[in-house]
Amino acid sequence: MINVSIVGGTGYTGVELLRLLVGHPGVELTAVTSRGENGRPVADLFPSLRGHLDIAFSEPDVARLSESDLVFFATPHGIAQAMVPDLLKRGTKIIDLSADFRIKDIAVWEQWYGQAHGCPDVVAEAVYGLPEINRDQIAAAQLIACPGCYPTSVLLGFLPLLKEGLIVVDDLIASAASGVSGAGRGASVNNLHAEVSDNFKAYGVAGHRHLPEIEQELGGMADGQVELTFVPHLLPIIRGIHATLYGTLADGKDGVDLQALYEKCYADEPFVDVLPSESYPQTRTVRGANICRIGVSRPQQRQKVVVMSVIDNLVKGASGQAIQNMNVLFGLPETCGLIAPPLLP
Amino acid sequence: MINVSIVGGTGYTGVELLRLLVGHPGVELTAVTSRGENGRPVADLFPSLRGHLDIAFSEPDVARLSESDLVFFATPHGIAQAMVPDLLKRGTKIIDLSADFRIKDIAVWEQWYGQAHGCPDVVAEAVYGLPEINRDQIAAAQLIACPGCYPTSVLLGFLPLLKEGLIVVDDLIASAASGVSGAGRGASVNNLHAEVSDNFKAYGVAGHRHLPEIEQELGGMADGQVELTFVPHLLPIIRGIHATLYGTLADGKDGVDLQALYEKCYADEPFVDVLPSESYPQTRTVRGANICRIGVSRPQQRQKVVVMSVIDNLVKGASGQAIQNMNVLFGLPETCGLIAPPLLP
Amino acid sequence: MINVSIVGGTGYTGVELLRLLVGHPGVELTAVTSRGENGRPVADLFPSLRGHLDIAFSEPDVARLSESDLVFFATPHGIAQAMVPDLLKRGTKIIDLSADFRIKDIAVWEQWYGQAHGCPDVVAEAVYGLPEINRDQIAAAQLIACPGCYPTSVLLGFLPLLKEGLIVVDDLIASAASGVSGAGRGASVNNLHAEVSDNFKAYGVAGHRHLPEIEQELGGMADGQVELTFVPHLLPIIRGIHATLYGTLADGKDGVDLQALYEKCYADEPFVDVLPSESYPQTRTVRGANICRIGVSRPQQRQKVVVMSVIDNLVKGASGQAIQNMNVLFGLPETCGLIAPPLLP
Amino acid sequence: MINVSIVGGTGYTGVELLRLLVGHPGVELTAVTSRGENGRPVADLFPSLRGHLDIAFSEPDVARLSESDLVFFATPHGIAQAMVPDLLKRGTKIIDLSADFRIKDIAVWEQWYGQAHGCPDVVAEAVYGLPEINRDQIAAAQLIACPGCYPTSVLLGFLPLLKEGLIVVDDLIASAASGVSGAGRGASVNNLHAEVSDNFKAYGVAGHRHLPEIEQELGGMADGQVELTFVPHLLPIIRGIHATLYGTLADGKDGVDLQALYEKCYADEPFVDVLPSESYPQTRTVRGANICRIGVSRPQQRQKVVVMSVIDNLVKGASGQAIQNMNVLFGLPETCGLIAPPLLP
Repeated sequence: MINVSIVGGTGYTGVELLRLLVGHPGVELTAVTSRGENGRPVADLFPSLRGHLDIAFSEPDVARLSESDLVFFATPHGIAQAMVPDLLKRGTKIIDLSADFRIKDIAVWEQWYGQAHGCPDVVAEAVYGLPEINRDQIAAAQLIACPGCYPTSVLLGFLPLLKEGLIVVDDLIASAASGVSGAGRGASVNNLHAEVSDNFKAYGVAGHRHLPEIEQELGGMADGQVELTFVPHLLPIIRGIHATLYGTLADGKDGVDLQALYEKCYADEPFVDVLPSESYPQTRTVRGANICRIGVSRPQQRQKVVVMSVIDNLVKGASGQAIQNMNVLFGLPETCGLIAPPLLP
Repeated sequence: MINVSIVGGTGYTGVELLRLLVGHPGVELTAVTSRGENGRPVADLFPSLRGHLDIAFSEPDVARLSESDLVFFATPHGIAQAMVPDLLKRGTKIIDLSADFRIKDIAVWEQWYGQAHGCPDVVAEAVYGLPEINRDQIAAAQLIACPGCYPTSVLLGFLPLLKEGLIVVDDLIASAASGVSGAGRGASVNNLHAEVSDNFKAYGVAGHRHLPEIEQELGGMADGQVELTFVPHLLPIIRGIHATLYGTLADGKDGVDLQALYEKCYADEPFVDVLPSESYPQTRTVRGANICRIGVSRPQQRQKVVVMSVIDNLVKGASGQAIQNMNVLFGLPETCGLIAPPLLP
Repeated sequence: MINVSIVGGTGYTGVELLRLLVGHPGVELTAVTSRGENGRPVADLFPSLRGHLDIAFSEPDVARLSESDLVFFATPHGIAQAMVPDLLKRGTKIIDLSADFRIKDIAVWEQWYGQAHGCPDVVAEAVYGLPEINRDQIAAAQLIACPGCYPTSVLLGFLPLLKEGLIVVDDLIASAASGVSGAGRGASVNNLHAEVSDNFKAYGVAGHRHLPEIEQELGGMADGQVELTFVPHLLPIIRGIHATLYGTLADGKDGVDLQALYEKCYADEPFVDVLPSESYPQTRTVRGANICRIGVSRPQQRQKVVVMSVIDNLVKGASGQAIQNMNVLFGLPETCGLIAPPLLP
Repeated sequence: MINVSIVGGTGYTGVELLRLLVGHPGVELTAVTSRGENGRPVADLFPSLRGHLDIAFSEPDVARLSESDLVFFATPHGIAQAMVPDLLKRGTKIIDLSADFRIKDIAVWEQWYGQAHGCPDVVAEAVYGLPEINRDQIAAAQLIACPGCYPTSVLLGFLPLLKEGLIVVDDLIASAASGVSGAGRGASVNNLHAEVSDNFKAYGVAGHRHLPEIEQELGGMADGQVELTFVPHLLPIIRGIHATLYGTLADGKDGVDLQALYEKCYADEPFVDVLPSESYPQTRTVRGANICRIGVSRPQQRQKVVVMSVIDNLVKGASGQAIQNMNVLFGLPETCGLIAPPLLP
């Protein structure tokens, strides 16, 4: 049994981690922390967990947390930085769902997140937790930085094209849309039902924090610098990300069989599903499940490739991916605890 | 031209008043106040008004407000109380959309709203602004207390039955449901899209502030005390209230023709629409319009009468009704500025 | 392993059965039939099942079906009647999710469903599959008639009150609301997104087919005839039923502790959750799970009791309940395959 | 008074035309036709129009229709073709909301719509009814082909860039999303609430009928052939189109002030609203109104321009635009009957 604690259990990634962990056969849950809800039974805040979880929120405490084999951070950025160095010294393994350790260039992080990084020395040892590209490093890591939700969908969508050098690397576009749970559980006028429902809009067009994260990892795939135009949109749905990706075939790559390329690239991946030719993915077909579904098309047989990639932002985009990382890290079957089908309709 | 000011223009009833007033041929809008947004163009906060409204929010100031013929209060309860006495002295007419002057019994008000009333002496002169029952008093009033949204739908639904003494007065039930705009534009976890959407729940079952207001007015119709069980529910829609009302036919009233009763009672009302026999109203058929649609049924010809009443909570349940009151108060045709059809689909 | 077939796998209860059965450790799925989709891979119609289910739809055939230990019917009413007698003769066990065998009085069934019953002789041996009231008979049955979705929520809500004789039996009200998946997957203008979304309405007020079913079972609890006013409403959500029940305390029953009554009644039920005092259930807290959550209140300490009961109409209201029945019927632990927590948010 | 008839009044563009026309001061409505609903009062099918419209659906009849000054076709493609030649001969003016006369190249039309064109000779005299580019021709036309909803949003978004030759014409992308009312009011499994709600997907990626229409008109602006990648998506909202447009600045055009360009281009247009710098439009801010709101951005000051354009697909994307065309055609003020603000929230 892996002894697990969660720091920050009151948000949507927190409750989703709990939903998935209470059914995981290899995990024992020790603590769920929250300063604000300290002492309150977790199932009182999240009645969906009544009958599944008997513990109460507790104060975060490094000494106590370090007794766990693994600590998940499901906190806003800036929190994990303050506790991670101590936990690392004590030998605890860490999977951070926040943005604290995703970006390797400290200056870039500090610019986009508008604050000094709390432990820049530690960043280098963090492994970017996308198993489909970093499986071996994850298995050997002590600190895993779970990818953001948009990055997961965009990276898995572009991977086959970039790895094979098929598209122009400075002309990438990701027109992506997220359900509102991605904005978190904080009180905010912008995320009220009466503001979000029956509406659609782009946001963060001039610059979204996931841009440098995505460009860093796309650059790794392309083995060089890439240029991405990233436009996120807010969907009036609770869960789901849909990324519509546009790339331009490089000179001489006209003959590529895109469908075969994608099927081959992901043939052995348990959590990436390439749809049949000219099928397009829907967010509802991944609702609640740790899966990324991808469709690829080349309209009118022109030079532009269109890739559509969907995930549940709270599962493959956050908490499910965190557990997938945990499984890799602790040598469990990678699909352990993650095999329930999506909820449709 | 009626010279009009609005106190508290940043909420949903505020923006709805503005939407309706910019198209009203008899109104000139002088000021829209907001302490928090002072100086900001109104159409910057509400882009739907771009091109329709050129003024900025200003500080509320009694002297300046009193220069208007009419002041609307679209504020939370407790605010109007502090300014109304002064405005009354200066001769300004007032239509208050909040709960400050709806309940005649000061002790009851103070118990349900949990605070001392700011100007109890003024309450008696306020007229309850439901034109369908108080048209003449409204025309002669200086201070009008606009009904709550639930009360409007429940009162219009029960009126024909109570006025004619057809149902048992101590066994009334209102099972009602409201869209989330009724909860206002304040930041709140409970009203986030991710909490409200794809969900339905009852709330305030043990006691909702609209209960004493409804019972007061039902009592007036029945000429005696009534007893109402009132259960509000939260709908994952933006606008709309649906009240499902249950009453028990009194002894000897078995032969009543309910359909004829309702049609006759509302034959001359421009804003109450009685549907054909065994047709049931839908909230979307009143979206954006100042209309209450009502259907009545007597399932299995048993003793229980079921009345269904729908309104747009922001229009006939708030801002439209306020303008209807204004029209009555200033001798305009009652439908002036309120005739655009609902938005369907 | 229980060898299972499903007749009618293209509707929402069909795909929900499949979702739950592919994760059930004691079941082997043999056939899923559909005349219209014969030969098409099931996961092609329902991409959420890609990777979970490899079979194609097949023609329904009694001989082949009878080789299964158990046949589920997830068909519209009228279909099971034609095949059940044959299957019974061959010794196959049957769980019918349709309305064909729920109503004991054949004349009543024929009146409400507008057609002659196909095998009236068989109706008497069908057991009404609500384990909370019929567990022992279910265990011994060959033919189980799964309750309707509304009936499940209403029956579990009223059960403690009626069993103890606490409320007046001829003055029951169920004001209930269902998500649109309850209306099925057939093409229909009324169930289009543009018709249902952002809307709320009552329907079937004059008479809904679940009324005689509910009254039959309530009568069984009350040991006599009951009279229920049943008003269903359509919610703009996919899954979920919320029943708001109103009952009048019988003379002399004023002193009852309702909270204790409900907690005691359901203390040993794995799939009924009585919420803490003055907590009210939300449909989203049961999304995707086989659970009924109940809250009870007595507003203003008057004579009217309000019970709120929520289920997921596709799970505890249909397919989950069918599997719960299967578990009882085959001697498995009743919760087998049904323990995953709800999906929230 | 313009005497107006509508052919095909049972769909969403039909009811929207009716909503707008009943409030139009210069129009008298003579007939609304429907074969299927012949004889049924229009307000019986669309209860939102109760009290606003007293006529019943009638059979379409060319002779009777030709007595109107103007006939709107709100029909599926293929219908207008059969009646237009006759009406033209009789001198009636026609505004066709369908796709029948939008595409000048008959072969292209026949390829994309999969049928022979019914009156190819007439196509040349049809004017493409986008007043912002064709105002003068519209004023002089007898037959106007109203643009599709996607085309309207895409064309108005790209117009300033193409007219000034600022972007590369063979690298245009339109990633657009539409509310479900765009799919019409026909019964269809794909458009059920339980299929569309809480979901997002691309569709028609390999080829959508609006592609040739958009490319034809973009080509006109660019004075040459353009190449557009067009990916439509289905939004779980009723009304609204959001087009996110991507263009690459042409060599030497780096210094352009995009914000000034857009503001200048649309300074005199009553129905195009350019938002302030780095503001992005939301579909809800145009709900129910005949307005296109546009925001423009150049992320990271790179070579890619992002334009966001929103309309209500049923208003500026269909029925409102049709009335705008009518106003131009009959010499009325262009905003006549189209000035009500959007419905927000």
